[in-house]
Amino acid sequence: MTSTERASSAAAVVELRSDTFTLPTARMLEEMTRAPLGDDVYGEDPTARELEELAASLLGKEDACFMPSGTMGNLAAILAHCPRGTKALAGAESDIYVYEAGGASYCGGVIVEPVANAADGTMALADIEAAFPEDPEDPQFALPALLCVENPQNRCGGRVLPLEYLAGVQALARARKVAVHLDGARIFNAALALDVPVRVIAGYADSVQFCLSKGLSAPVGSMVVGSADFIRSVRRIRKMLGGGMRQAGVLAAAGLVALREMTARLGDDHRTARRLAEGLAALPGVVVEPVETNMVFFRVDTPHLTQAEFIERSWNEGVRLAELGRGRIRAATHAGVSEAGVDRALSVFRDILAPAAVLSSRP
Amino acid sequence: MTSTERASSAAAVVELRSDTFTLPTARMLEEMTRAPLGDDVYGEDPTARELEELAASLLGKEDACFMPSGTMGNLAAILAHCPRGTKALAGAESDIYVYEAGGASYCGGVIVEPVANAADGTMALADIEAAFPEDPEDPQFALPALLCVENPQNRCGGRVLPLEYLAGVQALARARKVAVHLDGARIFNAALALDVPVRVIAGYADSVQFCLSKGLSAPVGSMVVGSADFIRSVRRIRKMLGGGMRQAGVLAAAGLVALREMTARLGDDHRTARRLAEGLAALPGVVVEPVETNMVFFRVDTPHLTQAEFIERSWNEGVRLAELGRGRIRAATHAGVSEAGVDRALSVFRDILAPAAVLSSRP
Amino acid sequence: MTSTERASSAAAVVELRSDTFTLPTARMLEEMTRAPLGDDVYGEDPTARELEELAASLLGKEDACFMPSGTMGNLAAILAHCPRGTKALAGAESDIYVYEAGGASYCGGVIVEPVANAADGTMALADIEAAFPEDPEDPQFALPALLCVENPQNRCGGRVLPLEYLAGVQALARARKVAVHLDGARIFNAALALDVPVRVIAGYADSVQFCLSKGLSAPVGSMVVGSADFIRSVRRIRKMLGGGMRQAGVLAAAGLVALREMTARLGDDHRTARRLAEGLAALPGVVVEPVETNMVFFRVDTPHLTQAEFIERSWNEGVRLAELGRGRIRAATHAGVSEAGVDRALSVFRDILAPAAVLSSRP
Amino acid sequence: MTSTERASSAAAVVELRSDTFTLPTARMLEEMTRAPLGDDVYGEDPTARELEELAASLLGKEDACFMPSGTMGNLAAILAHCPRGTKALAGAESDIYVYEAGGASYCGGVIVEPVANAADGTMALADIEAAFPEDPEDPQFALPALLCVENPQNRCGGRVLPLEYLAGVQALARARKVAVHLDGARIFNAALALDVPVRVIAGYADSVQFCLSKGLSAPVGSMVVGSADFIRSVRRIRKMLGGGMRQAGVLAAAGLVALREMTARLGDDHRTARRLAEGLAALPGVVVEPVETNMVFFRVDTPHLTQAEFIERSWNEGVRLAELGRGRIRAATHAGVSEAGVDRALSVFRDILAPAAVLSSRP
Repeated sequence: MTSTERASSAAAVVELRSDTFTLPTARMLEEMTRAPLGDDVYGEDPTARELEELAASLLGKEDACFMPSGTMGNLAAILAHCPRGTKALAGAESDIYVYEAGGASYCGGVIVEPVANAADGTMALADIEAAFPEDPEDPQFALPALLCVENPQNRCGGRVLPLEYLAGVQALARARKVAVHLDGARIFNAALALDVPVRVIAGYADSVQFCLSKGLSAPVGSMVVGSADFIRSVRRIRKMLGGGMRQAGVLAAAGLVALREMTARLGDDHRTARRLAEGLAALPGVVVEPVETNMVFFRVDTPHLTQAEFIERSWNEGVRLAELGRGRIRAATHAGVSEAGVDRALSVFRDILAPAAVLSSRP
Repeated sequence: MTSTERASSAAAVVELRSDTFTLPTARMLEEMTRAPLGDDVYGEDPTARELEELAASLLGKEDACFMPSGTMGNLAAILAHCPRGTKALAGAESDIYVYEAGGASYCGGVIVEPVANAADGTMALADIEAAFPEDPEDPQFALPALLCVENPQNRCGGRVLPLEYLAGVQALARARKVAVHLDGARIFNAALALDVPVRVIAGYADSVQFCLSKGLSAPVGSMVVGSADFIRSVRRIRKMLGGGMRQAGVLAAAGLVALREMTARLGDDHRTARRLAEGLAALPGVVVEPVETNMVFFRVDTPHLTQAEFIERSWNEGVRLAELGRGRIRAATHAGVSEAGVDRALSVFRDILAPAAVLSSRP
Repeated sequence: MTSTERASSAAAVVELRSDTFTLPTARMLEEMTRAPLGDDVYGEDPTARELEELAASLLGKEDACFMPSGTMGNLAAILAHCPRGTKALAGAESDIYVYEAGGASYCGGVIVEPVANAADGTMALADIEAAFPEDPEDPQFALPALLCVENPQNRCGGRVLPLEYLAGVQALARARKVAVHLDGARIFNAALALDVPVRVIAGYADSVQFCLSKGLSAPVGSMVVGSADFIRSVRRIRKMLGGGMRQAGVLAAAGLVALREMTARLGDDHRTARRLAEGLAALPGVVVEPVETNMVFFRVDTPHLTQAEFIERSWNEGVRLAELGRGRIRAATHAGVSEAGVDRALSVFRDILAPAAVLSSRP
Repeated sequence: MTSTERASSAAAVVELRSDTFTLPTARMLEEMTRAPLGDDVYGEDPTARELEELAASLLGKEDACFMPSGTMGNLAAILAHCPRGTKALAGAESDIYVYEAGGASYCGGVIVEPVANAADGTMALADIEAAFPEDPEDPQFALPALLCVENPQNRCGGRVLPLEYLAGVQALARARKVAVHLDGARIFNAALALDVPVRVIAGYADSVQFCLSKGLSAPVGSMVVGSADFIRSVRRIRKMLGGGMRQAGVLAAAGLVALREMTARLGDDHRTARRLAEGLAALPGVVVEPVETNMVFFRVDTPHLTQAEFIERSWNEGVRLAELGRGRIRAATHAGVSEAGVDRALSVFRDILAPAAVLSSRP
């Protein structure tokens, strides 16, 4: 199967479940076969090192470490920031709290304490303050060591945290002497929405994790960036977790293409997301949340059709959606979803929700 | 840089530090660009799945799980076998005990208890027995839950554990109601030396980890195999550790080539290892350990040259060696080391150890 | 200082901060000097064993284990129920979640997931259900292994969970195949309020922790009760945590008096608590929460006096109160607080809140 | 049962299994009923505080923390010294390694790495050095953070480590920038044997744990001493582990008597131990190890009687011994073992080992 065949076979469906379904581009595959390689566990893979230096430079941090996944990136960052028995505060709707299998508690004896997320993805600063015990000497209370923010905030609808909010979080963290870790899995989408370079967003955090897969289309990999000392800790933890990979350059080569060529096209995904949202809003019984990046969250509320039925019938027509908890559907646009794909999806949704179709669905 | 160029540039040196320095073959690179891909975190990468099924079938186990590294493979296996607070017994010279950064204690509260390795890599069964407390009800003692063996045993010189020994270990483990995990990072080398299929060796263990990198030349990846239930646990732990990779098929494609095409050529590495050992044995002041696989362990014992100097001067001549603890040097042969490379290495060693050279080294 | 002197010196103040301030009775001290002793780490302390058997019998469970504290009792119970990496669900206002320093995460890699408590101390069953992932095979989600309830619920005001509620919790847990642990630190107060023997409450849980200190006045100690197998695990964990005590009988002797003589007098504490609550309700600017046991929670809301000032001025007059988070004051009655003590406290509060006093407090 | 009756009933047997069987003295029991008490979790128990201050002062450290057991004392100290994932080096024959159920790995992700103990209890400094990786930046290796010594060394026969040895250990630790923790469970016995105050021994360590039970006869409790910052950490960990006890003064009162009155009589135990050793040495088939404190280790080597049989027959005659691993028997003298008791034990042993008795034991 050639890379073109791969793409066309993928085109048979409109894959909206997640931007993690992006496939590597032809240029990525080419670079993966050409990049100079070495044993990265010995620190000798030049391509992996080149990617780490580029990532650090783009994010405005001293150093970076290549990771097999964003989950490991966040886990290693939390472990590096948080001594055993301390608290990492994270949004109750954050990927770190919800999706990462409790890794920081499991591996590190860290208490990940949820702080409520508002609909726009922010956590109230007062709620964050409340997680700090009044008397830090009282041994009944675990002490916070880290504050995690997520931008864009996935489960709140891909919402983008404004810079002033990040500044407030950073000020609180500094006053409380805890670090800030930014789960910036899709930080380039946030940067586009905020119209600033990623380094501006990263400037509000001590460490950042961002993904080369997802919107940037690399097949595998995430980066953690931060101070040189911090990255030294992260690298040690990566080895312990088993994230040290031998000829990592085969993956890093694709990551370099992701950072050099793929960030510029994220505007397409934001546009197709808006197109999808507008189309959905015009359909009967559909309630769409505000769209700021490449995520469209909506509910289908009709008397004749459950959401599960809606998702299943869309799937059968080749349009794939995800139920994302709390009764909402997520559609994520990405390099594998064209304008035509969005229009086809809308047409499928329209048919499913058409009165006649709805009636016929319950014989 | 083409794959041929890569290889020729690598040929400029004789890389004997480790077989982890193997580079992907042209066929691997080709397959990496052609393999059908999907999001493996959703369980939808057909190439990763194909590799897992092939691995399970070759090793004679129910299922398999693809891992970014052997370190994670061993870690996830230990965590799946060992409840918190139990002991995993492992050789004092095993990679699990020495090189894996205490991961099982760090992440899982497992006590990895060292058992002495004899020079041939075995642990005395009586020593293993001694790690089981006489009174398992006595809460002073942590209880063993797992027995780890390594075959071939790397730090004992790549020595191969005989099948009768493995049978004895398995019988002891069954009598004591603990599982056996085989760190078979280089199990295909052991199978060649024992002249049996890998499934025969694997039959003495409940779970096995083996590497696609090292002698098999894949750029990244290891497999864990075992029962379906065990692999289900391992897969869950892999996600938590951050070893779930998106389009893992790009790496699995190389792994398929490794298993289908690269195991047959390991005999070359064993031959070059023996050639190297024989050449070394003829040099003055060199003591060579028995060679059973692709590892040559030796000591340089001359009054005029320290081992560190010997390694450094070899490096300067383009021949790379590793000091592997306890004053021994390791030279590992692999696909990147030809017969000519071995001869060049021997010639370099001869020059360094020649009386004149030695004398001139201390002015 | 004799035990009588101790009591009279304690009487100089009205200690309402907590019922943990109770002092051992004369009978307890006498028994502590008379009880037969042995080395309990060897299982040879007859008094400790007698206490464990009495506790198991009273609670209707197979066995019991003596603990140096309720914190260790809850910690050991959670560790015994929850494999590493699983979730223990607990009230967001529970002592386990708020006060126990994250011990289960620290020591056991357990994720303690908070579930909202209503004002009456209950957690909505729907909220508990929501903590179970829809697809238990999805490795993104940690899986619940335990459901913790607290009865009476301390931070919700010493509120008592009704038996029907406990039955609902138990049914949910059984359907979901998780265990129920009851933090019954003050279970005898709950039993009194519900007018049932403690074994009826304990019947809704797989394990219970309850305190011999607090209202029952023993100087040190808590019990964990449950099945024989569970207690075997708990005992092993106790040793590992360092809770195995040598001549534990000196403490167990007081515990036996606590269980035999002190439960009958808890009605006094409930009466003094109600007397205090009624008195407080009559004061200007005081809002009192419902009182069901020996806890009185209230707020002081006057324009002229902060709560911190109110607490400080009470302290200066010999009446000790605790701020218990979220702007509420807790007053707990116990064996050291007589009706006269309550009346004195009310008189002090009245003076502090009297218009003149309030005015004079801000010159 | 009065305290005198307790003692006389205990006198019916000669309890040599351990000095942990000591019973509280009459003076201890009296103090336990008289000491002023408070809630130590609130830091308000004056007797517990008095004991902590006395312990710190005797050991020459800034502060001390009262613990329910030596196991918790060592565990909390290791956790306070060792960040997650680091190594605590301890003797392969140390109580920390052998008897404490892997607590530091279980609770803290610490790797407790065994270092061989010589027969005299020392660990070779070269072996300690070997546990430090050559390249501390290499992430394959966990890094040591703590060096644990035990003085007297229990399982090596209660042997006493000389001050010059401790000085060497301390110098090594300082050069390597790791802390030294002294498991001084029986440090007063070591001080007596070395004829120095305990503070001199403690001066070679950053932290010390010592027991109030064992030879000093308190019913329950151990102390950890160290710098003020260190003790602050230890106190926090103690609360998390559940070692915070309410009216801890009831136990601390006995501990004060232990420190004030019981250290002076340890010479008796050393004398009875020597008397026992000399008597044993004169018996046929008995091999006795050197005796330096209150421990007598010996082997019974006769063709007609196994050691297990010897222990069982002694038990039946009211003389209790412990098998302590590796085929050795331990007899520990203490306040409950008089000279007459030793003589009775010797008489029982003599009868068991008499040729006629031995012959008759195998019909």
